[in-house]
Amino acid sequence: MTVPKFKEMERAYGFDEVALVPGDITINPDQTNIDFTIGNLTFSIPVLAAAMDAVVDPNFAILLHKLGGLAVLNLDGIQTRYEKPEEVLTQIIQAPADKVTSLLQKIYSEPIKEKLIGERIQTIKQAGAICAVSLIPATTKRLAPIAKEAGADILVVQSTVTTARHISKSYRGLIFSELCQMVSMPVIVGNCVTFSSALELMRTGIDGVLVGVGPGAACTTREVIGVGVPQVTATMHCAAAREAYYKETGKYVAVITDGGIRTGSDLCKAFASGADAVMLGSIMAQAAEAPGKGYHWGMAHSHPTLPRGTRIKAGTRAPLEQLLFGPTSTTDGTENFIGALRTAMGICGALTIKDMHKTKMVIAPAIRTEGKYFQSVQGMCSG
Amino acid sequence: MTVPKFKEMERAYGFDEVALVPGDITINPDQTNIDFTIGNLTFSIPVLAAAMDAVVDPNFAILLHKLGGLAVLNLDGIQTRYEKPEEVLTQIIQAPADKVTSLLQKIYSEPIKEKLIGERIQTIKQAGAICAVSLIPATTKRLAPIAKEAGADILVVQSTVTTARHISKSYRGLIFSELCQMVSMPVIVGNCVTFSSALELMRTGIDGVLVGVGPGAACTTREVIGVGVPQVTATMHCAAAREAYYKETGKYVAVITDGGIRTGSDLCKAFASGADAVMLGSIMAQAAEAPGKGYHWGMAHSHPTLPRGTRIKAGTRAPLEQLLFGPTSTTDGTENFIGALRTAMGICGALTIKDMHKTKMVIAPAIRTEGKYFQSVQGMCSG
Amino acid sequence: MTVPKFKEMERAYGFDEVALVPGDITINPDQTNIDFTIGNLTFSIPVLAAAMDAVVDPNFAILLHKLGGLAVLNLDGIQTRYEKPEEVLTQIIQAPADKVTSLLQKIYSEPIKEKLIGERIQTIKQAGAICAVSLIPATTKRLAPIAKEAGADILVVQSTVTTARHISKSYRGLIFSELCQMVSMPVIVGNCVTFSSALELMRTGIDGVLVGVGPGAACTTREVIGVGVPQVTATMHCAAAREAYYKETGKYVAVITDGGIRTGSDLCKAFASGADAVMLGSIMAQAAEAPGKGYHWGMAHSHPTLPRGTRIKAGTRAPLEQLLFGPTSTTDGTENFIGALRTAMGICGALTIKDMHKTKMVIAPAIRTEGKYFQSVQGMCSG
Amino acid sequence: MTVPKFKEMERAYGFDEVALVPGDITINPDQTNIDFTIGNLTFSIPVLAAAMDAVVDPNFAILLHKLGGLAVLNLDGIQTRYEKPEEVLTQIIQAPADKVTSLLQKIYSEPIKEKLIGERIQTIKQAGAICAVSLIPATTKRLAPIAKEAGADILVVQSTVTTARHISKSYRGLIFSELCQMVSMPVIVGNCVTFSSALELMRTGIDGVLVGVGPGAACTTREVIGVGVPQVTATMHCAAAREAYYKETGKYVAVITDGGIRTGSDLCKAFASGADAVMLGSIMAQAAEAPGKGYHWGMAHSHPTLPRGTRIKAGTRAPLEQLLFGPTSTTDGTENFIGALRTAMGICGALTIKDMHKTKMVIAPAIRTEGKYFQSVQGMCSG
Repeated sequence: MTVPKFKEMERAYGFDEVALVPGDITINPDQTNIDFTIGNLTFSIPVLAAAMDAVVDPNFAILLHKLGGLAVLNLDGIQTRYEKPEEVLTQIIQAPADKVTSLLQKIYSEPIKEKLIGERIQTIKQAGAICAVSLIPATTKRLAPIAKEAGADILVVQSTVTTARHISKSYRGLIFSELCQMVSMPVIVGNCVTFSSALELMRTGIDGVLVGVGPGAACTTREVIGVGVPQVTATMHCAAAREAYYKETGKYVAVITDGGIRTGSDLCKAFASGADAVMLGSIMAQAAEAPGKGYHWGMAHSHPTLPRGTRIKAGTRAPLEQLLFGPTSTTDGTENFIGALRTAMGICGALTIKDMHKTKMVIAPAIRTEGKYFQSVQGMCSG
Repeated sequence: MTVPKFKEMERAYGFDEVALVPGDITINPDQTNIDFTIGNLTFSIPVLAAAMDAVVDPNFAILLHKLGGLAVLNLDGIQTRYEKPEEVLTQIIQAPADKVTSLLQKIYSEPIKEKLIGERIQTIKQAGAICAVSLIPATTKRLAPIAKEAGADILVVQSTVTTARHISKSYRGLIFSELCQMVSMPVIVGNCVTFSSALELMRTGIDGVLVGVGPGAACTTREVIGVGVPQVTATMHCAAAREAYYKETGKYVAVITDGGIRTGSDLCKAFASGADAVMLGSIMAQAAEAPGKGYHWGMAHSHPTLPRGTRIKAGTRAPLEQLLFGPTSTTDGTENFIGALRTAMGICGALTIKDMHKTKMVIAPAIRTEGKYFQSVQGMCSG
Repeated sequence: MTVPKFKEMERAYGFDEVALVPGDITINPDQTNIDFTIGNLTFSIPVLAAAMDAVVDPNFAILLHKLGGLAVLNLDGIQTRYEKPEEVLTQIIQAPADKVTSLLQKIYSEPIKEKLIGERIQTIKQAGAICAVSLIPATTKRLAPIAKEAGADILVVQSTVTTARHISKSYRGLIFSELCQMVSMPVIVGNCVTFSSALELMRTGIDGVLVGVGPGAACTTREVIGVGVPQVTATMHCAAAREAYYKETGKYVAVITDGGIRTGSDLCKAFASGADAVMLGSIMAQAAEAPGKGYHWGMAHSHPTLPRGTRIKAGTRAPLEQLLFGPTSTTDGTENFIGALRTAMGICGALTIKDMHKTKMVIAPAIRTEGKYFQSVQGMCSG
Repeated sequence: MTVPKFKEMERAYGFDEVALVPGDITINPDQTNIDFTIGNLTFSIPVLAAAMDAVVDPNFAILLHKLGGLAVLNLDGIQTRYEKPEEVLTQIIQAPADKVTSLLQKIYSEPIKEKLIGERIQTIKQAGAICAVSLIPATTKRLAPIAKEAGADILVVQSTVTTARHISKSYRGLIFSELCQMVSMPVIVGNCVTFSSALELMRTGIDGVLVGVGPGAACTTREVIGVGVPQVTATMHCAAAREAYYKETGKYVAVITDGGIRTGSDLCKAFASGADAVMLGSIMAQAAEAPGKGYHWGMAHSHPTLPRGTRIKAGTRAPLEQLLFGPTSTTDGTENFIGALRTAMGICGALTIKDMHKTKMVIAPAIRTEGKYFQSVQGMCSG
C-alpha cells in the first residue's frame, strides 16, 4: 500500500552544522571591503547592535557610530518608560534569579512617555551620530511620527514574527507601504525567516529585513511554542527573496541576520548564508560600555502571561572597540569579530560581502567528542 | 555487484527534531479557535488527561471538565480494584524506589470490582461532567456494558498497541465494529502509529484513535522490546489515514497524540503534525489536584513478567487551571500550555486546529551544546 | 566544474538508530514460535552463548542446552591451555586494571593442549548436551579433527574477520569447502558483515555465518583500526546474502548476529534485521553461572602486539534461566530476553522468526536529552 | 510557490563519522606494503611529522628518518629565530596557561636568522637523513634558496590555506611553477581541501599537497572564522584531483592528510579516503623524543591579532619507535600506529596503500551513549 504523505519537511541548518570552504584564490585580509548600505546610508562595518535595553542606550549608540556600525535604540523599553533608566537597570541586575521574570513583567508594564522618545533621540543626534530606533508593530503608527519629528534616521519595526499581513481585533494591522511613505526614512522590518514572508515584506517598499525566529538550539521561543528556523537556512531563504525581489524591481533590500551569533565563526557563516549585515545582542552586551553591565535579557522576557527568555550574566569582556577589531589573546572566536570576518573573506577569496555570499559551505556538524584533549589539539592548525 | 536491499527504512522524527515555521500572515492569539470535537461532543480545549491512576480520579475528571477539557478514567486500575484508592496511592508513593515495581505488580493483581465501576462513573456524572472511561481490550467486552449502564459518555479502549485484528488463544479478539454498535457512544481506540493500522481501525466505525507507541527518546518500551515510532511521524501517519478515510466516507475521525509531550513546544508540534487533540500524562501529574501528589507511573509498569516503566517524582507545579491557562513566570515551556498553543497558532497564521495542520515544519534537531551560557542567550529572541 | 566522486559511502545503522514498527495485526506472545535450526539440529530458543572464556565452560554449556539454547566452547582459550582453568580465571579477575592486558597477553601465549580439547568436549557430551566448539582459522586444520573425534556436534570457525579467501605466508589458507567435507558436521563461520563476503562464504557449503565486526559505537576495534559496520546494516547485508543464496540453491544458511546486543530491544531489532539467531557475550557473562564471575574480556584483548579490548566488570544479575525467561522486576530491558522477543513479535504480528524478518523498522535515533525526568516519564507508555 | 535555492551544500564527513568495511579477501598483515614515494624519494612508512616546534627539531628528524618516515623542520619557528631553542621551548612549557598566548605572540615576533637555517639543515644532513623543511608563502621566495643551498631535500610551503592564486598588496604572490623550477627538489604545498584548488596547485608542477583546514570537531580555526572541511571529505576531494591530474599528465602527486588524526582508526581511515601519506602533529608530540616534552602548540597560535590555537599538555607516551611500531598494551588506538595500519589493510584485503584507496567505507557515526559499561563490552570483539 502506498502511504500518502501528510506533510513535507525541509532540513534546516544552524551555524553549528555548517562550515565555510576555502576558495580557489586567497586574498590578504586588508584588501577586503566590508561596507554595508541601507537606503542611502553606508556603514564601514556590517554590524548592528540589537534594540535591547541591556545593549543600547544613547551613549552606546554614539560609540558604535564612531566605530563604523549602527546601534538600534529600543523605543518600547526602559529608555522611554523611565526618566532615570540607570536606576531601573540596576534593579534588574540586582534582582535574585527567581524574582527577575516577575520584576521584568512589572517594569515593562509602565507606560511609554512620548517626551522621553524625543529626548533620547536628540541625545544621539546632537553627538553627530546616525540614529536608528525600534518599535513594535502595535505602537508603530502612534510613535513613529514622534521619532521622525525628533530626528531619527532609520526606523526598525520588530517583533518575534512580523508579516505584511496581520489579523487582530485590537488594532488595525500596520500597512508597511503606508508607513514607508509616511516616515520617509529607511525602514527595517522583522523578524522573518521564510522566502515568501520576506518577499511579501520587501514588496511593501521597506529597505531591510531582520532574519531570525528562535535561532539556535536552545532558544526559549522554541521550547515554549516550538516555532523557529535555524539561522543558516533562515538567512538563505531571505537572501533568496532579496535576489528575487532585485530581479523584479532592481531594488536591493538588506538582509540582516539577527540572533544566534556567538562567535566569529557564526558571524562569518551568516554572511556566507547571504546576510548583508548582522545584528548582535549578547556579544554587544559583553562590551564594557553596554548599559546592562554584563547582564542581558530579551524583549520577550517580560511578556505578561507567556514570558520567553532568561536574564543572563554574560560578563564583561573588553571595550567595544577591542571586541570588534582586536587585538586579542583569546583563541575561541569571542573577540576581534571584524578581524575574523576579514580573515575568513581572505581565505574564501571574497573581496566584498557580495562575494562572500558566493562562498561554498559544507554541512559538517560540530560533534563534540568526550576527549577534550584531542579536540584542542585539532585546533592547532597550521599557521 | 548490485547488493539487493533486505529492507527499506523510513526516517521517523520526534518533537525534538522539528520546528514550526512562521506563516506569511499572523493572527492575534485571542482570535484563534481551538475547539475539539469527538462524536457529537465538543470541548473548548483540545486536551485529554491520560487514563493513568496518578493522573485521573473522579475529582480530577470533574475539574478538567469545568476547564473545557476531557479526563479519561482508567477502569482497569486502582479506582476499580480498591474501595479506598487513596490508601493504595499512598502506599505506592511511599514505597522505596527499589521495591516499587514489585509492589505495583502486586497491587495491580487485585481483581476489578464491577460495583466500583458504577460508583466512580456516577460520581463524575452527578457533578454534571462528561465522563470518559478506558478499558484494555481483554476486559472490554465484559466491562463496557457496565460502564455504559452507569452512564459513561465516551469509551476508550487502550493498550500498548491495539489493532483491528488480534490473534489469541485465551480470548476471542475484540471486534470493534460490534463494540461500536453495542455501546452506542463515541469510541476511541489506541494506541497505533501507522497509516495502515489507523485506517483499518477507522474502518471499524470508531470515532478517535490514540497515537503513540514508545514515544520519545527514552521510553522503556523502546528499551525493553525495541518497538516505537517517534510522535511527529506517528501523528502524521495517522493524520494521513484520517484524511484518506474522510475522503472515502465523509466521516472525520479524531487523531489524538498520546505521550511524549513535555512542553508547550511539543504540544504545538503535535497539532502541526496533524493532531486534533493531545492526551497528556506527565504534565497533568504535575497539577496540584492530581491524585498521584507529584508522583507518576504507567500502566505497563505493573506487567507481571515484563514490566516497562518507572515511578517518577514529577513534582507538583501549580493548580491545573494555571498549568493550562497561565499566567506564568516560568520561561521554559512547562506552564500555560493553552497560551502557548494560541501564541504559536497566531505566529503560524492558523485560526483553527485544522489550519494548524497546514503549518510548515522544518527538520531542525535541537542540538544541545556544552556552553550553557550561549544557549540561554539565544533564548532572548526579540519580543 | 563537476567534481568527480572519489568514493560512494552507504549509511550504516546500529541498534540505537532504529525502532520496530507495530504491525497491522497483533498476536498474543504465547502464540509465537521462536525455533532456530542449524543443519539438522533445532533449538527452542534462537540464542547462542559466545565462545569467550568468561562466558562458556562445560558446565555453562550443559545448562544452556537444558534451557533450549546453544553455548559455544572456545577451543583456543583457557579451557584448552590449562588443566585447571578456574585458577587462571581467578588470576585474571583479581589482576589490577592496569596490569590486566599484559597478563592476558602472557596467559594466552601458553600452548593449547590437544588432550584437553577431548576432555572438555566429553564433559559436555556425557551430560547429554549438544556440543559446539570454536577455533580460529589458523588452528582449524590441525584441531578440528580432534574436536570431531571427541564428539563435537557443531564447529565454529571464528576470527575478527573471516573470508572465503585469505592470503598468508605462514599457513595455507583454510579451504572451507574442504573443511565442511572433512568434519561432516554443521559449520558456522565468521565474522563477516557484507553481502558479498557472506555470499562467498555460503557458497563454500557452510551452515551458518556470524555477523558483526566492531559492532556498536565504542568497539575498540573501531578505535584501533577503524574497521566495523553497525549491526543493523551488517545483519541486513548478510540476510540479503542468505536470501540470494537460498534462491540459487534452495539451501537456507543461518545468519547469527554476534556482538553489540545489550538489551531486549537490541535483540528484537537483530531479528527484524534478518537474524535467525543471536550470539550473546556480555549478557551471558552476567548470568550467575558464568565462569567469569561477573567479569568479562574478549578474544582480541590478548593480541601480543595490538590488543583490542578491555576487561569489564559486568556484574552478576541473575541465574541464566531468569535472565532469559524472567520474571523480572527490572524495567530497562536487561532481563527476560525471551519474554521481550515474544512480546515484540506479538506487537509486530510475527508468528515466527521468519515473519519477524518482514517487520517494518524506522530510522529513529535514540537521542538522549538532558532532562532525565522527562525521559523516564516518556517510558510510562500505556499498558 | 517554488522557493529558489540560495546555495547548495554538500555533506562533509570527518573520521568519527565513517568506518572501514572488511574486504572479500583477507591478507596477513606482514604481507602488506606501505611504501610512500614523493618525487624520487621513497620511505618505508607513509608518515610525516608536522612542521611544528614542539614536534620536530633536528634530532627528531634524524630519528624519524631512521625509522623510515619523514620529519619536516619548521623554518619559520623557534629553531631559526633563536640560537638556543631549548631555552625558549622551556619558557613556553613553563608559562602559566593564561599567559601563554601573549608569550607566543612575543616569541614568534623575533626575526628569523638566515644563518640558523643553514645550521639546522646541516645538522640533519650530516647525520645522513633526508631533510624536509617548511616555509610560509610570504617568506618562501627569500628563504627557499638558502634552504636549498644548505642541502634541504624537500621543500614544504604551508599556511592555513594556500592556493595557486593569491591577492596581496604587501608581496607579489608566490608563483609555484617558478618556485618548482628554481629549487629543483620535490615541493609539497598546503593546506588545501577542495578538488578545484588541489587540481590547480597540481598543475603548477608540485609533487605533493597537504590536506586539511580546521580538521576535526573543535578546531579553533572553525570557532574563530568558521572555515574548515572535515578530513574524510577533504582527503577524498584532493584524491579525486590527484586521479584527474594523473589522467591528464601521467604524473602522480602525493596527497598527504595533515591534521585531525588522533588514533590508529583515524589514520587507517585517512588512507581509505585516498591519502598516500599522513602528517602527524599531536601524536608525534607524545613521543619521548619530541622537543615539546609533552606539550604542544600550533603555528596559528602566535598570530599577532587573531590567534587560533591552544597550548596543550599532550603528555609523553612512549619512545617514537614504540609509538609507531608497538608492541603495546594500550587498547584504545593510541599506540602502534603502523601495526594498526597493516592490520586494517589485512582485514580490508589491501596489499598496498593504493589498494587501500579502494576499500569501502560506510557512514556510521560514533554515537557515544551514556552507559560507559556497555560501550566497553562492545569492544570485546571476537579475536
